[in-house]
Parts: sequence; C-alpha cells; structure tokens
Amino acid sequence: MQRYFIKENYHTSDPESLKLIGDDFHHAAHVMRMKVGQECFLVFQDEVAVRAKVTELLEDYLLLEEVAKEEQEKELPLNVTIACGYTKGDKLDLVVQKGTEMGAYQFLGFPGQTSVVKWDHKKLKKKQERLAKIAKEAAEQSHRHLQPEVILYETEQYLRDTFQEYDVVLVAYEESAKQGEKGQLVKTLQQLPKGGRLLVLFGPEGGFSPQEIATFTEMGALTCGLGPRILRAETAPLYLLGAISYQLELL
Amino acid sequence: MQRYFIKENYHTSDPESLKLIGDDFHHAAHVMRMKVGQECFLVFQDEVAVRAKVTELLEDYLLLEEVAKEEQEKELPLNVTIACGYTKGDKLDLVVQKGTEMGAYQFLGFPGQTSVVKWDHKKLKKKQERLAKIAKEAAEQSHRHLQPEVILYETEQYLRDTFQEYDVVLVAYEESAKQGEKGQLVKTLQQLPKGGRLLVLFGPEGGFSPQEIATFTEMGALTCGLGPRILRAETAPLYLLGAISYQLELL
Repeated sequence: MQRYFIKENYHTSDPESLKLIGDDFHHAAHVMRMKVGQECFLVFQDEVAVRAKVTELLEDYLLLEEVAKEEQEKELPLNVTIACGYTKGDKLDLVVQKGTEMGAYQFLGFPGQTSVVKWDHKKLKKKQERLAKIAKEAAEQSHRHLQPEVILYETEQYLRDTFQEYDVVLVAYEESAKQGEKGQLVKTLQQLPKGGRLLVLFGPEGGFSPQEIATFTEMGALTCGLGPRILRAETAPLYLLGAISYQLELL
Repeated sequence: MQRYFIKENYHTSDPESLKLIGDDFHHAAHVMRMKVGQECFLVFQDEVAVRAKVTELLEDYLLLEEVAKEEQEKELPLNVTIACGYTKGDKLDLVVQKGTEMGAYQFLGFPGQTSVVKWDHKKLKKKQERLAKIAKEAAEQSHRHLQPEVILYETEQYLRDTFQEYDVVLVAYEESAKQGEKGQLVKTLQQLPKGGRLLVLFGPEGGFSPQEIATFTEMGALTCGLGPRILRAETAPLYLLGAISYQLELL
C-alpha cells in the first residue's frame, strides 16, 4: 500500500479530516488514480503512521479519514548516521537507497583526504537534493516511519564539528579489519541504550589516511573492523546496517 | 595487493616455481606491469592463499616463488548459498558483486512465479558467464579464498531439486516479516555447525506466491523474516550476509 510522508505532526491533525496536497496529491490522484474508499498510509513528522481511507477527491487536494494506527515498530532502536567520504560515480545513491531500506537515520557526505572527486557548492546542493529524493522514495517503499535526512558537507572539518552530537563515533577502518579487530562494533551495540545516537564513518575508495584516523581518534572516535573480507566503500555501510538490525531487532 | 585465483590445488604445486598464465599473466604483466621482485597473492582451489614474489618474467608466463602463507581466515564459517528469483534489470549483478564481498559461497538464479522477465537458455548462459566474471573480480578485490560459483536455472523445479544438498533451507518471506517473525534466522545460525550448508531463497520483485511458499515448506524449507522494514529483492541478500557475518565472525 502506498505511503505518503506528511509535513506536520500527527497530534496537531484532525483524524477525521486528513489531507494530501501538492506532489503527494498529484501522485495519489493522477499516478495511483486513487478513488473514494481506497486506502493508503500517512506518516507524520512525529513518526506516527496511520492507515487512511479517501473520503473526498477535490480539484487540488484529497481528504481522508483515519482507519487505524500502524502499530508495528519500523525504526531501528538506535539512530544510526552513516557518513561517507565522496566516491566516484553514483555509489552514494546506492548507499542512500539501500541504507534507507535497512533503517539508517541520517546520511552525511564529506570530502576525505583520498577522495578523487571534487564537488563545488552548487554541485553538492544538487546532489543533496537528488539523494533526499532517493531517501524519500526508499523510505516510502520500505515502510519507514521517518525519512532519513541527507547532508553533504564541503569540508571534513564540518563533519568533525558534529562529533559531539553523538553518543559514539565509530570509524570503519580497513587496517582494523586486517589486524583482526572484531569486538568494537559488538561492544558498542550492546552498550548503547535505546534511542542512542551512533555515527559511523566510511572512507572513500582509497580509505582513510593514517593522519585522518589519528585526528578522528584524538577526538574520541573508535576504529572498528567489519569482518575479515575487504569491503568496497559502498558495501561497508550495508554490512553495518544488516549487522545492527540483526543485533537489535532479531537477536 | 593484487590477487590471482589459480586453477589447481596448492598441495600439487611447487612453492618455488609458481606460475601465472593466460588472462592472469596478461593482467599481471600488461595491466599491473609487475616486475621481478614485486609481490601478489595467489589463491589455490583448495583455498590456500600465499604471498608470492615474481622471479622471472617471460614471453607468455610469469614465474613466482612463495614468500609466506596468508593465515587469516577469510571465509564465512558456513557455506551460504543465495538463490534469487529473476528480477528486471541488472539487480543480480549487484547481489553477486556485493554478496561476494560479504562472503557468499554460491549464487543461484531461478524464474519465480511472479518473475516478469523470461530468459531463454542462450540468454541465461550469457548472463551466467557475466555473473561468474563479476564474482571472480569481487572475490579478488575482497581478498576471498574462493570464487563463488554462479548457476542460473531454467526452472524453479531445478532449484527445488537441490534442496537435499543443504542442511537448512530458509525462505526470506515478506509476510513473515510483516507478522513480526524474527527468531528463525537467529536459531538457524546458532544451531548450524561450522562448515554447515545453508540455502536462502529470495523472491523476485513481486515476492513469492502463497503456492510457492507452500511447496517450499512442504519440502522442509523454513520461512524467516529479516526485520520490520520491507527490503527490495536485491537488498535482502545483503542484509542477510551482514547479519550472518556479524553473528559468526564478530559476535
């Protein structure tokens, strides 16, 4: 069933007179061709999701009424932010699409020391809009209760400035994996309380330089390995999210 | 460091006179431009990997000698076979590339009841060759000790005929996930012994039909959920492999 993200909180809405407007109205009325009596999900900014039935179809909006709340928890018990060094091509598209399906809370991008691509302010703004759209569509498709935010930074300094907003900062580091480090991720996941904020940094194709690692760890970040195989830059975040969901939602 | 998969067993080779021939020779000599004294990894069919040094560069082959064995375990403790219903586009490419990095043992493809694409014998043969190449390159890149095999079946019956080769057959089933099933994967991973053979079935975009599920479960397959979010056909195998590595290699 189709999902629409509503740009207001549930607790300020009237359950008997919900509304779809703008792009969502267009999608419901002209792409999905919804008729009176048909149902969809509406997801509000305060992460409440309801099943709703169309009651009236008007010129430029659509009225619905609530049928039932969606009770199943859809979000990971941790807020996981994935930060990726800029890589060539459209690898970030893949990370944002698949990472949204797997439950990431937020995506950050930054130019790593070994990043080959150089994107200026204008290009980053355009990319950020495109990735936000990918995240929105993936969130609808995967039945999320929130749309992950995407922020592309112009410098690595801006990324480091956010470290203090998180309970734990991990750095996925190939050298840790090679040396057989395997306890840090487990320890972190077992210790963080529900609602904890975790930031995980992933390097570009060339990985992190020893200098970057030194700067991160001086600021309190912890290096961690993700198993014995060398994962591509865009594969590592997906491994991480599968592991986090397994530990916190299945185990 | 570059890796080459050698089509013979280590125990039949002479460690002082190892050889690269054919495509691998071409790659080492002309793409990587390796010189005498430079090193690479050679991985044999019996899963032994050695670091080796070039001792002689000849017209159409290259001689090396063993420097040291690669001791770190690179393969998952279970042999995990990923079977995917045929999907549109190149989604199978993504599953094979990322799934190889994450440690899958083998990939199978089959036409599910809801598969939209219809591939004939010739097309399947071509696809299979292409996917085998993707698996080989990903295995080299991710430092695997084996190259996953890829087999594309013409009927779902052929896939079912292989069930008896596995210790456990799981079916990733969206309806299980919706009903909150979350114990089966954990139970399976905790019970299977080292070297156990696990087959996991993933449907095409449209999922499995109730009839397919009935047939699979009558044959002993177990349905399992992969968390509360709805994953695309090509995302679910990556979630699974991240979860398996976490349980068996990190936890």
